[in-house]
Amino acid sequence: MSIYGHLWGTDETRALLDDDGRTRMWLEILGALAEAQSELGLIPAAAANAIGARVREPVDLEAVATETRATGHSTLGLIRVLQRGLADDAREWIYYGATVQDVSDTWTGLIARRMLDIADRDLGAIDAALARLAGEHRDTVMLGRTHGQPGLPITFGYKAAVWLAEVRRHRERVAQARPRLVVGQLAGAVGTQSAWGSDGPELQRRVMERLGLGVPEIPWTSSRDRIAELVVLLALITGTLAKVGNEIYNLQRPEIGEVAEAATEGVVGSITMPQKHNPERSEHLVTLARVVRSSAGLALEGLVGEHERDGAAWKTEWELLPRACGAAAVSLRLGAELLDGLQVNRDRMRSNVEAQNGYVLAEPVMLALGEQIGPRRAHELVHAAATRGLAAGVSFREALAADPDIPDVDLDELLQVESALGAARELVDRVLR
Amino acid sequence: MSIYGHLWGTDETRALLDDDGRTRMWLEILGALAEAQSELGLIPAAAANAIGARVREPVDLEAVATETRATGHSTLGLIRVLQRGLADDAREWIYYGATVQDVSDTWTGLIARRMLDIADRDLGAIDAALARLAGEHRDTVMLGRTHGQPGLPITFGYKAAVWLAEVRRHRERVAQARPRLVVGQLAGAVGTQSAWGSDGPELQRRVMERLGLGVPEIPWTSSRDRIAELVVLLALITGTLAKVGNEIYNLQRPEIGEVAEAATEGVVGSITMPQKHNPERSEHLVTLARVVRSSAGLALEGLVGEHERDGAAWKTEWELLPRACGAAAVSLRLGAELLDGLQVNRDRMRSNVEAQNGYVLAEPVMLALGEQIGPRRAHELVHAAATRGLAAGVSFREALAADPDIPDVDLDELLQVESALGAARELVDRVLR
Amino acid sequence: MSIYGHLWGTDETRALLDDDGRTRMWLEILGALAEAQSELGLIPAAAANAIGARVREPVDLEAVATETRATGHSTLGLIRVLQRGLADDAREWIYYGATVQDVSDTWTGLIARRMLDIADRDLGAIDAALARLAGEHRDTVMLGRTHGQPGLPITFGYKAAVWLAEVRRHRERVAQARPRLVVGQLAGAVGTQSAWGSDGPELQRRVMERLGLGVPEIPWTSSRDRIAELVVLLALITGTLAKVGNEIYNLQRPEIGEVAEAATEGVVGSITMPQKHNPERSEHLVTLARVVRSSAGLALEGLVGEHERDGAAWKTEWELLPRACGAAAVSLRLGAELLDGLQVNRDRMRSNVEAQNGYVLAEPVMLALGEQIGPRRAHELVHAAATRGLAAGVSFREALAADPDIPDVDLDELLQVESALGAARELVDRVLR
Amino acid sequence: MSIYGHLWGTDETRALLDDDGRTRMWLEILGALAEAQSELGLIPAAAANAIGARVREPVDLEAVATETRATGHSTLGLIRVLQRGLADDAREWIYYGATVQDVSDTWTGLIARRMLDIADRDLGAIDAALARLAGEHRDTVMLGRTHGQPGLPITFGYKAAVWLAEVRRHRERVAQARPRLVVGQLAGAVGTQSAWGSDGPELQRRVMERLGLGVPEIPWTSSRDRIAELVVLLALITGTLAKVGNEIYNLQRPEIGEVAEAATEGVVGSITMPQKHNPERSEHLVTLARVVRSSAGLALEGLVGEHERDGAAWKTEWELLPRACGAAAVSLRLGAELLDGLQVNRDRMRSNVEAQNGYVLAEPVMLALGEQIGPRRAHELVHAAATRGLAAGVSFREALAADPDIPDVDLDELLQVESALGAARELVDRVLR
Repeated sequence: MSIYGHLWGTDETRALLDDDGRTRMWLEILGALAEAQSELGLIPAAAANAIGARVREPVDLEAVATETRATGHSTLGLIRVLQRGLADDAREWIYYGATVQDVSDTWTGLIARRMLDIADRDLGAIDAALARLAGEHRDTVMLGRTHGQPGLPITFGYKAAVWLAEVRRHRERVAQARPRLVVGQLAGAVGTQSAWGSDGPELQRRVMERLGLGVPEIPWTSSRDRIAELVVLLALITGTLAKVGNEIYNLQRPEIGEVAEAATEGVVGSITMPQKHNPERSEHLVTLARVVRSSAGLALEGLVGEHERDGAAWKTEWELLPRACGAAAVSLRLGAELLDGLQVNRDRMRSNVEAQNGYVLAEPVMLALGEQIGPRRAHELVHAAATRGLAAGVSFREALAADPDIPDVDLDELLQVESALGAARELVDRVLR
Repeated sequence: MSIYGHLWGTDETRALLDDDGRTRMWLEILGALAEAQSELGLIPAAAANAIGARVREPVDLEAVATETRATGHSTLGLIRVLQRGLADDAREWIYYGATVQDVSDTWTGLIARRMLDIADRDLGAIDAALARLAGEHRDTVMLGRTHGQPGLPITFGYKAAVWLAEVRRHRERVAQARPRLVVGQLAGAVGTQSAWGSDGPELQRRVMERLGLGVPEIPWTSSRDRIAELVVLLALITGTLAKVGNEIYNLQRPEIGEVAEAATEGVVGSITMPQKHNPERSEHLVTLARVVRSSAGLALEGLVGEHERDGAAWKTEWELLPRACGAAAVSLRLGAELLDGLQVNRDRMRSNVEAQNGYVLAEPVMLALGEQIGPRRAHELVHAAATRGLAAGVSFREALAADPDIPDVDLDELLQVESALGAARELVDRVLR
Repeated sequence: MSIYGHLWGTDETRALLDDDGRTRMWLEILGALAEAQSELGLIPAAAANAIGARVREPVDLEAVATETRATGHSTLGLIRVLQRGLADDAREWIYYGATVQDVSDTWTGLIARRMLDIADRDLGAIDAALARLAGEHRDTVMLGRTHGQPGLPITFGYKAAVWLAEVRRHRERVAQARPRLVVGQLAGAVGTQSAWGSDGPELQRRVMERLGLGVPEIPWTSSRDRIAELVVLLALITGTLAKVGNEIYNLQRPEIGEVAEAATEGVVGSITMPQKHNPERSEHLVTLARVVRSSAGLALEGLVGEHERDGAAWKTEWELLPRACGAAAVSLRLGAELLDGLQVNRDRMRSNVEAQNGYVLAEPVMLALGEQIGPRRAHELVHAAATRGLAAGVSFREALAADPDIPDVDLDELLQVESALGAARELVDRVLR
Repeated sequence: MSIYGHLWGTDETRALLDDDGRTRMWLEILGALAEAQSELGLIPAAAANAIGARVREPVDLEAVATETRATGHSTLGLIRVLQRGLADDAREWIYYGATVQDVSDTWTGLIARRMLDIADRDLGAIDAALARLAGEHRDTVMLGRTHGQPGLPITFGYKAAVWLAEVRRHRERVAQARPRLVVGQLAGAVGTQSAWGSDGPELQRRVMERLGLGVPEIPWTSSRDRIAELVVLLALITGTLAKVGNEIYNLQRPEIGEVAEAATEGVVGSITMPQKHNPERSEHLVTLARVVRSSAGLALEGLVGEHERDGAAWKTEWELLPRACGAAAVSLRLGAELLDGLQVNRDRMRSNVEAQNGYVLAEPVMLALGEQIGPRRAHELVHAAATRGLAAGVSFREALAADPDIPDVDLDELLQVESALGAARELVDRVLR
């Protein structure tokens, strides 16, 4: 495995996408094809048996690479290498009547199945971690920020519950997409299953049954909406995880200090700045989302294919799909790890609110004043007082007191942080229910 | 309306997205808010009535524009203009406790509802047109092409049925997305509905009920997956329509001449080349899909928002959402028109097959030979014969006859186009069932 | 002008790109064409005079819009409206032998010229503001941050000088691109200037001379690299300005508080949170860069055009070019304003360094220790001491003192911030020279 | 090398970008650093010698991978493996004071140099091939097509000359970018060269001199415009090559048959359709341009980095840069090969013009008529006659003759293809001069 390979893929995705893993899956498909063809009498039973035995054995990938270059063909290299070990009467029948896209699209169906499984599992773990954080910190007061500026207090549980609701929508999307995406393909040269006469549909059904894949209503050799949907779904999921990562990156700034990634034994932040503890996972979630998003753009572009097979769009999938799946799997795993170990600093959250000197409670004061003098007038007075107070460096309470136009209100009560939380805690309960 | 506005939007989308239409929808939201607030005793009934009356009257958009610039605030300009016509006691209560994003996100919910309605309706029309084409041309033989080169015959009905199946998957996606996307938002300053005490959730419920929108489980001020999903869905749909457009553009080349866009009275193709009939709609479908796809990339990027409101991501939506919705609506309408009026030239389809001189029937000949001499050997011989024959400019039949290594097969039968169609016709039936 | 039009364009770009501005420029081109054609005897002098007079008068844009829809042709609508006011003998000769792309590509050349002028001017102002900031704050110590975490001190002048060097590279790019991009086109139907016999090249030369545009070596009807280069250049520039905006957004967080946007009279940050001062310009720079970047992707895609004119790629330019130019011009103006009025808080910069409790001076301590015990060993000890000290909440000096393995070094000198600045100040001088 | 690695990189780019090649280049940088540090007295001479010897020997990449995972640090893994073989007094001084980005950005400078060299060389070969094609086919008449429809004749030399002019603009861009892009970096922890006291600038100068790289005016740790410019430049170049590929793909359709890719010995087009000769190189040029373009989008996004190092933007480069460089190098090589071996079918070009039955000569007829009856009236008549004639399936000459409103013109002369070529041939000469 390459030096930085762990940044862009996991063991699970390498087993799907690397030469070794992909070839093993292709062999599985060739084996299922031969078996089903033998059942239907399309190829001799002895040939199917020999092929079945061959595809369970390892393949010399170097030899495949060499033959692939020599033939300029995407699967003929593999076929020729497989044929070497087969007797004459079996050799001829390997991959009979199928085309490259049959094996590669069926492989794509297997990838989709696996990726949706991984997403489901890891989103499940993320869901659990977020539910725990939302529950534990239902009442943990912190600054709500808009445009990078403190606005009003929220709770950390509220923030976690917002993330959780988003993650649950992704789980719903995954479930809805599954039957559409987890299908294979046995289409033949131009999609009409031309090589197998009237047996085509039944042959396809049997092959897909063996592989645990759905049967498409009609071939999709140039209908790439399934590919696009898969990659877009991964882009949506990794986008959410990048948001979480970016939030943690910001809240981990020492000037804010409200959360921190768990430290990992042996990890070194910087060789020049030995004190550094960098939010490495959080940052990498942002990187990974970019990589997946850029793949999604290409996958959407690939919808516009020509005729019965569009080589340009199709080959682009060979580049984007492994990239997107690898990066998404790393993102899901990192996201689960990150949230599982997240350190939340309640005291700092509270003291950051207090450091705002009361100004983040301008809304409740304004609303209370509004009941006396009308909300717009109250806005004007509070805006002016806050501007003056911030410039003078005094507290919000002092700033209000300094303005004779502002009528008396019960500031002791209004400047209670807890009374400014609105429905934050009830919204957490609602999501956790 | 601007000179080229029809290229990028329809009357329906302008009514959603232009200053005039957007403002009218915002007023509807402000009215619903005031009404619900009055019911809950949050604002005086008289104020709600006055606001309700005001929002049903037109607004001076120039004045709104001027105030918007003066305040540097996205809704305060509108509010100030609305306040001008209101008595003192009503003026104060307009838009009470709500924030910009409440009105703009609720508007987005209304846009989503309308766009999904438009998609549903126009995809329905496209579905009907494709079903008709698939049925009528179930047996219309034409060239199947891969990599831009004739491969084997298919039928035009098969091609239409492949498109149809893709369109139906989009209809399914639209239906699944609807309950997720058609929701509004009443979140207040940082999402906690802080201005309305314990009434926040009920207030939101009543406002959304009035507007016919769903209620989100928790605010989504920085959960933009709904926006991204909407735009991505439009990108998937317009991608398919661009594929259809691109196919028609290519098949309409006079060198191919198999289909043609309907001509439109009064339309001029070229002022310098008076004979031209350009596939204008087909081309524009490709353009529109690019525009929507590029919006989808931005919408996916917008998932990574900071804190409780991210101004950069949110303002980007203001640019991308109108653009994507306008272009998608034009695409849907053009797609329906194009397919409805599509001219199919059966004779040319047949003669293009015949012009291939038999070479597109190489697969059946190879398969038949394969039963005698094994498929791989058959491939070699037919490949060689075809290469020689094409170079010599003779027919496939002659090329085969010229090779003494090729055993006798019943070429009269094998070179029948109809016997090379595989399951093309049955696949059409399956989709149409 | 529309309510939010100021977010996406300036008066200068509207004069280039809106219906009104674009039409005026097209008329200028038609006038130059007629004049040059008359000089070469291609059209009657009287016709040229009449056309010349007509194009200096206003045009009924509504009528043009109506005719454009009726003809389905991009320029015929305008031509027909122009013809209405012309006498019979002049009417015929307007736009003689030219094609749509001649006028629209020549307009693009005029846009390129204007946009490069705007970029040059505004980058010049930004350059001046940054040079001033770099000079004034050459010695203003602040935290250098990597991965969002304080690393070592830098100076604010250093940060400004890094931006300045980047801006100067953009100015160099603008200068190099200018002769390539500021060209027009008079190509005729398929690029061969077919309508004007042997006069084509000379006609083109004269028209471009009138308009102040360069003459292309050969028509570029389907060579769109100029368009792509222009938009990419705008994406590079706005990307840099977004970086500056994003930095200011972050440094303006009250928890950091090192810089602030200038406040603008009358501007309201929030209607619900009256105390807010949002970094509106900074955020919008980020938004604008996304919009331009997404246009750049489309412009690069447009390179792949078919044959002598590719309608899909070309029409996409109609959407992306106005969008990119409008957003880039706003970005340039905002960037200049923002930097011109930027408030720099030296005291806060210094106190933020001090709040790090010495830990950001770990590198110099490590280096000094390294001379005694070797750098790697020094890294281990300092890393361990810093980790322990941060966990215990003690100062870096205390943390070092607590570790008996760490040899004595002159901490009084090493913990001087100024001695850790490396070449920061000299690098400022180098850029300012 | 992996099975499909040849699709996405060349031997040359693998030597830059793969684990093996990258590590070798990093070692070269470490060696140059140690040498220069020794000269300046920053590290002991003996240490520099030992390091210099070590970096010339191979490294156990598996061990580096393992240590990289253990430390979670991008270069510490390599450093630790290098240290294993060094004596105590040398071990300590490897990579002294430098940070990860110093080595990776300097490597980027080396990549830029190599990629620009490759681009220069291969664009030179493409230039030569195009100049040959333009010259040989200066007078080879073929159809000019717009919107996929025949418009007027051009010559194939004209088409090649348009491509050539575009390629030459790219060569100019490459030359202009070179001094900006081919620079290294020795910036230290936060960019201020803090570890080397006043020696920083001189140390950087000496290291870059050794490596043959330029010295940046100020560090660019978070100024990524150079990276973006490089990738964008590759996107521009591969975009042009994709245009050429797409054109050949279309002109190679047997229904058009005007050009063909050279056949390659041993290459098999299809295993199911043995007659196929697919335009594989042409298609792959389109695929590669998409991959590079998508990288360019990410590189432009990376401009918006935070503070003195932005991990998310920077790590994204690790993914996009190898991808873009690999794909661009394949594209350049394929482009040169494709054009070098391109088969041009003059007869088919001519017969395709003739098959248009005169209609592509509508412009000259219209212009000649225009001199008698005015150009607009001529347009109407010719448009009507062409529409009728095409519907009736008669020749353009017959269609004109059938309309009594059309005055007599010398059709024998006007329907000469050569007289409709405009300045096509002169424009070729102009580019070739």
